[in-house]
Amino acid sequence: MSDTDLLLRPVGVVASPLTDVDRAPNQGDEGAPDADLVFDPALAVATHDLAVGDVIVVLTWLHQSDRDVLAVHPRDDDRRPLTGVFSTRSPHRPNPIGLHEVVVIGVHDSRVRVRGLEAIDGTPILDVKPALTPIPDR
Amino acid sequence: MSDTDLLLRPVGVVASPLTDVDRAPNQGDEGAPDADLVFDPALAVATHDLAVGDVIVVLTWLHQSDRDVLAVHPRDDDRRPLTGVFSTRSPHRPNPIGLHEVVVIGVHDSRVRVRGLEAIDGTPILDVKPALTPIPDR
Repeated sequence: MSDTDLLLRPVGVVASPLTDVDRAPNQGDEGAPDADLVFDPALAVATHDLAVGDVIVVLTWLHQSDRDVLAVHPRDDDRRPLTGVFSTRSPHRPNPIGLHEVVVIGVHDSRVRVRGLEAIDGTPILDVKPALTPIPDR
Repeated sequence: MSDTDLLLRPVGVVASPLTDVDRAPNQGDEGAPDADLVFDPALAVATHDLAVGDVIVVLTWLHQSDRDVLAVHPRDDDRRPLTGVFSTRSPHRPNPIGLHEVVVIGVHDSRVRVRGLEAIDGTPILDVKPALTPIPDR
């Protein structure tokens, strides 16, 4: 076993036309643009089997989040009651890890294009996995 | 915005009868036992709205993983070709974050019981979110 400390090492970064977190949609299926996952070329072995059509979960670090927030009004709607962040998808939470289920639409070396990603340009990528449901055996 | 460094702060720990990672099932639906999510009581505001019947995604830190592994034989089957870890669910990967979709079956203060969790006893919990599909509006 190697070191297992709790320091994340980004494996890449999001390249996207989205640059303003206040204009980004809340979820990828709410009008988010296509974006590129730009991986560290040193990790080519890890990304090598990603292919067009794969349904993947991208884990990101929502780097503009407030980690001290424990409750929010869902969807920034003040009429909705304050709700504990573990019952919401708020980006503001103790460990602001984003989960994005997307489809791969292009692969060019260490650059992987995906459909409909709501993370803004420059967001660190932490991990990629096959989506939970469609590919249970990999 | 508060600090956004890449240091994770565990929000709780898994309490489970599973103690040996080599005997743990690969996925929660492969015979994993029920387990407790034991949250830091200081985060009670964040956990307060978790309720029996909620379908949640638990994010964990797979603390016994090897972070230097970039490719594996899926399901430890040597007959299957070496595959980049971003196309697998291997626990061994640069940022060993586990995703576990489970149902809440009990809540007692900061202790939340879930059905079928394959993480071993003592696994740090990083985050909890509503599952991607069933609760898109929260």
